[in-house]
Amino acid sequence: MELGMIGMGRMGGPMSQRLLRGGHRVIGYARHLDALRQLEEKGVIPASSLEDLIARLKAPRAVWLMIPAGGAVDETIAALRPLLQSDDVIIDGGNSNYKDTQRRAQMLKASRIHYVDAGTSGGVWGLENGYSIMVGGEEEVVTRLRPIFETLAPAPDKGWGRVGPSGAGHFTKMVHNGIEYGMMQAYGEGFALMRHKTEFNLDLHQVAEIWRDGSVVQSWLLDLAASALAENPHLDGIAPYVADSGEGRWTVAEAIDLNVAAPVITLALLQRLQSRDSESFSNKLLSALRNQFGGHEMKKK
Amino acid sequence: MELGMIGMGRMGGPMSQRLLRGGHRVIGYARHLDALRQLEEKGVIPASSLEDLIARLKAPRAVWLMIPAGGAVDETIAALRPLLQSDDVIIDGGNSNYKDTQRRAQMLKASRIHYVDAGTSGGVWGLENGYSIMVGGEEEVVTRLRPIFETLAPAPDKGWGRVGPSGAGHFTKMVHNGIEYGMMQAYGEGFALMRHKTEFNLDLHQVAEIWRDGSVVQSWLLDLAASALAENPHLDGIAPYVADSGEGRWTVAEAIDLNVAAPVITLALLQRLQSRDSESFSNKLLSALRNQFGGHEMKKK
Amino acid sequence: MELGMIGMGRMGGPMSQRLLRGGHRVIGYARHLDALRQLEEKGVIPASSLEDLIARLKAPRAVWLMIPAGGAVDETIAALRPLLQSDDVIIDGGNSNYKDTQRRAQMLKASRIHYVDAGTSGGVWGLENGYSIMVGGEEEVVTRLRPIFETLAPAPDKGWGRVGPSGAGHFTKMVHNGIEYGMMQAYGEGFALMRHKTEFNLDLHQVAEIWRDGSVVQSWLLDLAASALAENPHLDGIAPYVADSGEGRWTVAEAIDLNVAAPVITLALLQRLQSRDSESFSNKLLSALRNQFGGHEMKKK
Amino acid sequence: MELGMIGMGRMGGPMSQRLLRGGHRVIGYARHLDALRQLEEKGVIPASSLEDLIARLKAPRAVWLMIPAGGAVDETIAALRPLLQSDDVIIDGGNSNYKDTQRRAQMLKASRIHYVDAGTSGGVWGLENGYSIMVGGEEEVVTRLRPIFETLAPAPDKGWGRVGPSGAGHFTKMVHNGIEYGMMQAYGEGFALMRHKTEFNLDLHQVAEIWRDGSVVQSWLLDLAASALAENPHLDGIAPYVADSGEGRWTVAEAIDLNVAAPVITLALLQRLQSRDSESFSNKLLSALRNQFGGHEMKKK
Repeated sequence: MELGMIGMGRMGGPMSQRLLRGGHRVIGYARHLDALRQLEEKGVIPASSLEDLIARLKAPRAVWLMIPAGGAVDETIAALRPLLQSDDVIIDGGNSNYKDTQRRAQMLKASRIHYVDAGTSGGVWGLENGYSIMVGGEEEVVTRLRPIFETLAPAPDKGWGRVGPSGAGHFTKMVHNGIEYGMMQAYGEGFALMRHKTEFNLDLHQVAEIWRDGSVVQSWLLDLAASALAENPHLDGIAPYVADSGEGRWTVAEAIDLNVAAPVITLALLQRLQSRDSESFSNKLLSALRNQFGGHEMKKK
Repeated sequence: MELGMIGMGRMGGPMSQRLLRGGHRVIGYARHLDALRQLEEKGVIPASSLEDLIARLKAPRAVWLMIPAGGAVDETIAALRPLLQSDDVIIDGGNSNYKDTQRRAQMLKASRIHYVDAGTSGGVWGLENGYSIMVGGEEEVVTRLRPIFETLAPAPDKGWGRVGPSGAGHFTKMVHNGIEYGMMQAYGEGFALMRHKTEFNLDLHQVAEIWRDGSVVQSWLLDLAASALAENPHLDGIAPYVADSGEGRWTVAEAIDLNVAAPVITLALLQRLQSRDSESFSNKLLSALRNQFGGHEMKKK
Repeated sequence: MELGMIGMGRMGGPMSQRLLRGGHRVIGYARHLDALRQLEEKGVIPASSLEDLIARLKAPRAVWLMIPAGGAVDETIAALRPLLQSDDVIIDGGNSNYKDTQRRAQMLKASRIHYVDAGTSGGVWGLENGYSIMVGGEEEVVTRLRPIFETLAPAPDKGWGRVGPSGAGHFTKMVHNGIEYGMMQAYGEGFALMRHKTEFNLDLHQVAEIWRDGSVVQSWLLDLAASALAENPHLDGIAPYVADSGEGRWTVAEAIDLNVAAPVITLALLQRLQSRDSESFSNKLLSALRNQFGGHEMKKK
Repeated sequence: MELGMIGMGRMGGPMSQRLLRGGHRVIGYARHLDALRQLEEKGVIPASSLEDLIARLKAPRAVWLMIPAGGAVDETIAALRPLLQSDDVIIDGGNSNYKDTQRRAQMLKASRIHYVDAGTSGGVWGLENGYSIMVGGEEEVVTRLRPIFETLAPAPDKGWGRVGPSGAGHFTKMVHNGIEYGMMQAYGEGFALMRHKTEFNLDLHQVAEIWRDGSVVQSWLLDLAASALAENPHLDGIAPYVADSGEGRWTVAEAIDLNVAAPVITLALLQRLQSRDSESFSNKLLSALRNQFGGHEMKKK
């Protein structure tokens, strides 16, 4: 079928390619013309503006947003709204907060424009492997978009599904990312432990490879860990600094709101915060307190 | 090749079968005659005693212990020792503490008996899928056992390897289990969160299935979660009670000994302890303290 | 000086009494007439309505709200606003979220009504010991209220202070409560550990008493723990169920917003959530997973 | 009464002085002659050797060890044993592991020498304020030593007590230190949070002072925090590096052994480990993993 794709970055570009391979017609728009030009070579039809994009699509239109969560989504929706007509669909494939999604869907309802959230996982490997997609929105509208999802997913009947009404897709993707934080941290700790057991001089890449087949901890993240350790066995030159996007924070907040204790996901997030704070005031105060009551020497900077 | 297998339980039985399928000769011994008899039908040659088992093996012998970690291992080694001769090998495939393994290897060295630790993962699925095996011990001895490991593993060159000297196999398996605790807890928390988001009425089995293909959190544990949720979508009738064997505790202790912070693995263990304490004295004291300073009512039992 | 007090509950009542003892004139209003009547006997001048309360105060007025945080505060402010005049002051002594406080102060500015936040700690012991009060608001207005704070505090120059602009008082009180959660949990865990060390048959009340003098862990909370253990040494009949108000949650959220890792305060909150969930879905899933991969039996309900 | 004191360091020196002030006769021994000479000026009778020390005491003797836990204690006991006679007492006032204490008591029983453990808290403030002392050992022997404990404690009937048999004193002191870790961390996190709330520009020393009187979080540790923040309001020049002795680790291990979840004490320990690891391998792996799946850039060192 035909799809307008807004955003041609690390996610939007490969997704467009996968759609093209699947026989779909993709009209693309991106702020960065370079990205758009590269995809033009692969078969994407470039639009010079949002107006141009919408004009090139036949109604009822489907426009997929693959842009950073936050203000950019609101701005793009505001720009699209007057260009669209009743029964058109906007799909948000990014990592939006599900509450924003609910708000946007509600707002667009007044213009009879449908809003579908498509939480998308798979990263830079999605082009080859397909994406896992958690969809929220009206059942009939999701059904209309089925050919798109069937192509983006690893297989037509696998790795995607409508999980509930508007917001349910982004909510599920948020939890997915929370779990991802916990899993990553579990691997990180385990490999660090082996690294520090110098007595055994373990080859961490070898261990990761052994675990990839037959073990209880086999996973795609482990495959990636094996790959990272193959490239750089001692992770030389990498700073112990871990960024976070927003989903981990939202997961933690949501868990507390729902009175669900999620200590491992929560701690995984806090570890990331800590990885970026080399001047912990808390630790300084502890050092000062030990000096106060026990006369223990403080390490100076 | 030829192998003596001691222990025909949930692990030893299927492993014997996999070895038979691979063309090996397996002489088996087990305390429970029923288990042994069942495996006799599959081709295991039953031994009536440890003496009988050793007598039926040609030197240099290889005897695999697949019995519960702890005292049983020491007792079995003590019983085997006088029956074995120089250059024979004992392999401990169980979840022994790596320090016990080091001690046992050291002790057997005096009798020139080799001791190999084979940390084995894969659970009840190993018969079909193969086992992931982390091997510790002398290089030449491990090489001699190669046909065994190649058959037990998912593929001759996959899922197993000698990771270091005596103890290194069990150490690596211990860390594996620590990571397993963390991963399981991450999934547990994530699914609990979705369960409590009643607003979306999510079908947890469906979500697990969607994640199995293409997502960052795909893993074998997730496959199992999907399977568990397919069988029992609301986990009805299951008590919120989680046992633990010993490896999680050892991982936590080892991490602290090595000055490695492993908060997620540690918390995952503590959650299990807590799942079994429905009379938390700590919580009672907190309730009493809130009453003391704030006059807040205490919930009575 | 003269003060209108709205709310005569567990906090407002004793605070009124302490003010009376300090020679202040207190006009009180409460929804529950019983509470008000009891305080009338102590010297509080009862007001029959908010209108009556305001009418009995001389301008510029000071009205102290000691009511539950949340909607009740907004409603009361809305009711008071038309009754008050320029330069009157409303003081919120409750546990309001500091962001609400900032919003309310901003809103009242339009009517030239001052808004002061007075985070108040001390619980039911404040009547005798005095309250610790963290004040936020305009400097001149706080100065005007000084006689009130000097009386409520343990001593005129101790236990209270203006810590910053509007909201700073409630923010500081929020952090205070976060710390309180962490401290309480630390004591809870320590006493639980001693309780479970049956080998030593420790008398927990005795231990608490020993620690009260000279030890590093002496504190007021420890005094209260000693008192609770004196009354009920084994905490018989108390459910292991711990409520939480809102400040712990806000502290955790604020810490994450500020990229400050606060693992102990956070875990202390999660413990409370967990104390109230006897049907942990996460634990059930872990039990099911152990069954799936290891054939371990699940405990049934 | 008369006491032999071995060890004249940060704890043993001031304790000797407090005993002298209480009218006791103290014969002292220390490896470092300087320390001993300084205390001679205060009234301690110096011994030139352990032999000399024992020779100067009348039987039944009481010898107090105030030396670092570990091997030094075993060595000193080995050296004292042949010098002592039946019914003499050795008191270990240091932070020994309670299991070592139990072993030592058992061993000395064969020589009919009593062994008393006196877990001592109070740090460098004990000279003025008195020490909190948790005593383990035989009831009659502890009774015999009562004058010593009554002098060391803040008051004769306060801050000390026999809590149980041999080992119970050190066990209780160990738990005390675990709680101390949790409390310190709670304060550390709370003050860090306020520090990072730049919007309010809080004066942390002022806040600490306000909390010292009347608040729920008042404690001796808070007094010390106030003092540290008075001296160095921004903790300038202090490295965010926190040492730990052994009791925190033992508390964590003991809790797990007893199946008691102690997440806050445990996390407080892990924070200290982390404060000393500026090259977290775990964090590096997480950064590498994010790059692998999401193409996120890694921060370089």
